[in-house]
Amino acid sequence: MKAEIISIGSELTSGKNLDTNSQWLSIQLAAMGIPVGWHTTIADDFDANLQAFDIASQRAGLVIASGGLGPTQDDLTREVLAKLINQPLEFHQPSWDTIVEMFTKRNRACPDRNKVQAFFPKGAEPIPNESGTAPGIWMKAKQSYIAALPGVPREMKSMFEAWLKTRLIELGLAQGVLIQRKINTFGLGESAIEEKLFDITKRGNDPEVGITASDAVISLRILASADNEAAAFKKIAPAEAIIRERLGELVFGVEEEELQDVVHQMLQKAGKTIATAESITGGVLASKFTKVPGASARYLGGFVTYTNDVKKSALGVPAELLEQFGACSKEVTLAMAEGCRERTGADFALATTGVAGPGGLSPDLPEGKVFVALAWKGGAHSETNQWFGNRNEVQSRTAKMALNILRLHLLKEAKHG
Amino acid sequence: MKAEIISIGSELTSGKNLDTNSQWLSIQLAAMGIPVGWHTTIADDFDANLQAFDIASQRAGLVIASGGLGPTQDDLTREVLAKLINQPLEFHQPSWDTIVEMFTKRNRACPDRNKVQAFFPKGAEPIPNESGTAPGIWMKAKQSYIAALPGVPREMKSMFEAWLKTRLIELGLAQGVLIQRKINTFGLGESAIEEKLFDITKRGNDPEVGITASDAVISLRILASADNEAAAFKKIAPAEAIIRERLGELVFGVEEEELQDVVHQMLQKAGKTIATAESITGGVLASKFTKVPGASARYLGGFVTYTNDVKKSALGVPAELLEQFGACSKEVTLAMAEGCRERTGADFALATTGVAGPGGLSPDLPEGKVFVALAWKGGAHSETNQWFGNRNEVQSRTAKMALNILRLHLLKEAKHG
Repeated sequence: MKAEIISIGSELTSGKNLDTNSQWLSIQLAAMGIPVGWHTTIADDFDANLQAFDIASQRAGLVIASGGLGPTQDDLTREVLAKLINQPLEFHQPSWDTIVEMFTKRNRACPDRNKVQAFFPKGAEPIPNESGTAPGIWMKAKQSYIAALPGVPREMKSMFEAWLKTRLIELGLAQGVLIQRKINTFGLGESAIEEKLFDITKRGNDPEVGITASDAVISLRILASADNEAAAFKKIAPAEAIIRERLGELVFGVEEEELQDVVHQMLQKAGKTIATAESITGGVLASKFTKVPGASARYLGGFVTYTNDVKKSALGVPAELLEQFGACSKEVTLAMAEGCRERTGADFALATTGVAGPGGLSPDLPEGKVFVALAWKGGAHSETNQWFGNRNEVQSRTAKMALNILRLHLLKEAKHG
Repeated sequence: MKAEIISIGSELTSGKNLDTNSQWLSIQLAAMGIPVGWHTTIADDFDANLQAFDIASQRAGLVIASGGLGPTQDDLTREVLAKLINQPLEFHQPSWDTIVEMFTKRNRACPDRNKVQAFFPKGAEPIPNESGTAPGIWMKAKQSYIAALPGVPREMKSMFEAWLKTRLIELGLAQGVLIQRKINTFGLGESAIEEKLFDITKRGNDPEVGITASDAVISLRILASADNEAAAFKKIAPAEAIIRERLGELVFGVEEEELQDVVHQMLQKAGKTIATAESITGGVLASKFTKVPGASARYLGGFVTYTNDVKKSALGVPAELLEQFGACSKEVTLAMAEGCRERTGADFALATTGVAGPGGLSPDLPEGKVFVALAWKGGAHSETNQWFGNRNEVQSRTAKMALNILRLHLLKEAKHG
């Protein structure tokens, strides 16, 4: 059994408002083990509404709609649902009493226009609304149960939680739980990661494993449905073990953890400090470090050295190096990292240079070419890469690359002491 | 003729990700006078996809889909569209050449898996993708034109703008225009702005004027529909004039212009340079400056001085000042700005200190309390503010506050010479 979510309103199809109800309802249903197969959004148009409910009631076991229950002329859900089951609309006195009482409480006269909100398709059941005037509608049509809720997110959510959720459980529609585990990796592209996990990302597997990419971070989502949480986690564990075994140090964190969170924790554990010297990332790397609450315990500070003069004065990069190799080079990047470490007294320093674009500097320095260096007491390491993406993406991905170089170094230090 | 937008992906129906593509596409189509009647979202399921495209191609004159064009096993759009028109998938050598070239440019081997992205339903036309590996698909089925684009918003948007928009105009599908003019302000809250514009933001006005807030930037959107662009702009002009007259220097830019873009232009015009010394904003201010293409012409560099030691060594802030007033103070912020200007030789320097949270430092220094200073040759100015918001919001809003202080100063200099 799958559910369908229908959102009603011309303000949604026109793009004027963003529909967030569908996502919220999908998350609630997933948590109850009810998978959602479709979201449908329709304008305030009678025929389009009728067709959408007709299609949904044939393919879905449960339809949850929001919108179209207000008192105005463009609110059509009541009439559409009556037509769908070929029943008349009937007046429901208790609902009308509640609506009138709602207005009285607020010292306002109840407009006659609101009376339409007390009409329901014959055979349907009102869903109480504690925080607004529009009651919802619960009924059965063809293959499916239908719940119509108001479009106002606050009312929709409280009615789902106070009434609809219980009804779905009573009917036995809730099928255990659906739990997601997210594993975050950095260092390889989406298709290269999939190649390593081809067997477990196959469609139809249980648990299902999906791959998503977000600005060079590739995440594996393990989705398990089971009768209860413990059983779901029992399904997740072996899949997670395989992913961790095959991907090794590419895995940096889980759920909403970002590279800077993990690096901060590792620095905390090692009792070490870090500073930054940025050219291409222009403050983006510093801002990632300082995004973490309590960053000041580990992050001492940084330099954004955009010009050669500032590279020399702030970091002590030798003029000869800049002349010989150019500002975007392995040599200068290493000198920046070393100068930054010396001048701040940090245990580690990261430096970045490169070409953010738009446009390249030379055939050897195309747009997206970057250098990252890490310096520590008695040593240094540098890497280069060629990104594809716009200026902001090149900056953000290079900052991630720098964080990842530090992470891998800290891992090695932790292992070998 | 109405259009339908189809979004494909289990991450959408499960509620894991929020679909924003449908809204963006609806706005673009509205601007071309093409009304959207339906948004449909489906999981990565072959039958559900086929049914959705079948329904859409019968009721809509134009179908724009996004998602399902990647190289992995759960990407089904190609196969679905071939089945929809009962045609085989055919290999398209030029598309494959482009994909391979894309990987070669990045010095990476092209995975065989990506070859599926060069297959198209027989008779369909590839839509070029300048920023990713997946070409789109353009074809006709039943009543309607179908465009399938990748789900990645950046790729989807650039393909719409670079290719699809022109095609829709050539086919005569665009009917009149809906034009939006966005005016961006900084310095007052949403309700304070609305109070100044109560008459022109009333619902039902033509043109319609809406207010939106995005991280302390308040924007006015003037929306005018007309037969052609000239007529729409004629409606917009008087509303824009009223807004500019009433809001004065609160207005900093239009459309997608951000504070750093405007400040960069002003510095460019004045032939002046800027450097930054950040504590609370921790690199966010620098990253805003360096986000602008060509930033290096005006932005010399910056310091992220998180500890007192680095404030002293990198910026020359006197130890006595730090002791007497504390790091988060007007006095230290001014000293940071002056030290930064001296050491970089920039015409202007901006400095920030404060409490990003979570948690405050003392009753006088609660979470969100910030100081910003601007230094120039022969002068300096400082401001303080108390933000409400989380750590990242406090950082980002303080960076905007700093940019705005510089903007107002540059305005004054330009006026008084």
